[in-house]
Amino acid sequence: MSKTERVGVSLDKKLLSMFDELIRKQGYSNRSEAIRDLIRSRLSEKQLSEPTARAVAGVFLVYDHHSTQLSNRLVALQHDHLLQVIASTHVHLNHNNCLEVIILKGKVKEIEKLANNITCLKGVKLSRMNIMTTGEKLT
Amino acid sequence: MSKTERVGVSLDKKLLSMFDELIRKQGYSNRSEAIRDLIRSRLSEKQLSEPTARAVAGVFLVYDHHSTQLSNRLVALQHDHLLQVIASTHVHLNHNNCLEVIILKGKVKEIEKLANNITCLKGVKLSRMNIMTTGEKLT
Amino acid sequence: MSKTERVGVSLDKKLLSMFDELIRKQGYSNRSEAIRDLIRSRLSEKQLSEPTARAVAGVFLVYDHHSTQLSNRLVALQHDHLLQVIASTHVHLNHNNCLEVIILKGKVKEIEKLANNITCLKGVKLSRMNIMTTGEKLT
Amino acid sequence: MSKTERVGVSLDKKLLSMFDELIRKQGYSNRSEAIRDLIRSRLSEKQLSEPTARAVAGVFLVYDHHSTQLSNRLVALQHDHLLQVIASTHVHLNHNNCLEVIILKGKVKEIEKLANNITCLKGVKLSRMNIMTTGEKLT
Repeated sequence: MSKTERVGVSLDKKLLSMFDELIRKQGYSNRSEAIRDLIRSRLSEKQLSEPTARAVAGVFLVYDHHSTQLSNRLVALQHDHLLQVIASTHVHLNHNNCLEVIILKGKVKEIEKLANNITCLKGVKLSRMNIMTTGEKLT
Repeated sequence: MSKTERVGVSLDKKLLSMFDELIRKQGYSNRSEAIRDLIRSRLSEKQLSEPTARAVAGVFLVYDHHSTQLSNRLVALQHDHLLQVIASTHVHLNHNNCLEVIILKGKVKEIEKLANNITCLKGVKLSRMNIMTTGEKLT
Repeated sequence: MSKTERVGVSLDKKLLSMFDELIRKQGYSNRSEAIRDLIRSRLSEKQLSEPTARAVAGVFLVYDHHSTQLSNRLVALQHDHLLQVIASTHVHLNHNNCLEVIILKGKVKEIEKLANNITCLKGVKLSRMNIMTTGEKLT
Repeated sequence: MSKTERVGVSLDKKLLSMFDELIRKQGYSNRSEAIRDLIRSRLSEKQLSEPTARAVAGVFLVYDHHSTQLSNRLVALQHDHLLQVIASTHVHLNHNNCLEVIILKGKVKEIEKLANNITCLKGVKLSRMNIMTTGEKLT
């Protein structure tokens, strides 16, 4: 797609052999790909420290579906933020508990605020948020 | 649903007022709920340090959908692990990039291994994993 | 020292017994102390998201003391930032490697910049930074 | 000291220029050093997932030095674990609060247990732990 450049990196032999073993175990097909992943991950991390950077996030909620009010509030909250909420996936975990994954897109600070509002709803047992850059600049 | 107990906690007044302000901003309706969330989060964290604990996870991938091989490999990998893969959601981020959220369920160590295999596929630009307990014991 | 207030928290019995077991294992003498720690940790986390908040940090470096240039640069860099650098502790880890812990104090953004400058010095093998509020407001 | 090998990595030009900008800002003198740091950090992270791996850690405590009992318990606890406790540094943060950095060395699981015991002492306001490999294998 876009132009690539070949870069030389000096690595101690022992360090290199440990790295090769690690990425082989993980399943990487080659070293370049593994190093690119390290670089992209570092860049993404830095970009996200800007509150106005564009990001995509997943909010994970584990909750008891018997708290009917929660389901209604979750739906209402998502519709109130149509611009940021892209999709949500609902999974039945066990007799009582559901997992809901809500995918958000927007500026870092907007996403964080909305995620906060969601995770503190009564009935939510556990919550986590994953936030990443949208990959637009990471080729 | 199940029996609750009222517990008394001594808190410094200044600490309490700062906490009240924080949770009000986040949107909590009351203090008990906020403290329960802190406790559940701490318990979940501990439970996940056991490799055989039951967990649910979301693997987030940002990738360029033009790498057609990746899409095929992603589908194949998910079908090879039907027991662990519950659902996946696909979102179009921008002209080049997609977000895929793959929801996994199983033992912590199985999930981590599978997530590793997914994230090192060629074409994946960014990846993150969120892992949580299934909430069975967290009422 | 300062005034305390007794707060009531409703907790599910099972959740409470799991929490009690966890904190007993960790060595807490009572529940209030454990809950206060959760609250202080949450508040500190929020306070640190402000770039101008006052903080204290420890920068951990593992490096090969045979890179003599590094030692000199480390000393020079610390003297260039006398206002932020409070103390440093040096530990001999093994034949080749040293651990140096540099304690910094200042605004979050100043500390992060300085820590960055330190960790990217040639010869540093591993580095981590720990950042915390100075506890002034957390009683 | 030990043998190095030159490795070629293919990188997209835009990705490379973003990475170059990032590491220039951080203060890296060259790309190889920055990539080596990413690799060492990844390896260290993996090594620490083994409970029996050798590690070095810093436990950071912010506490009110007026809780005289805490100081005594801290000293006692450190002497009870002479094999793991290497050094501690004490810093006066403000009128009420001290920072104590306790450097530990040993197996990951021993260190985590000891750190837990320290951080739950009554009077400790905030605590964090940093854990790293001892760098023996990371050249």
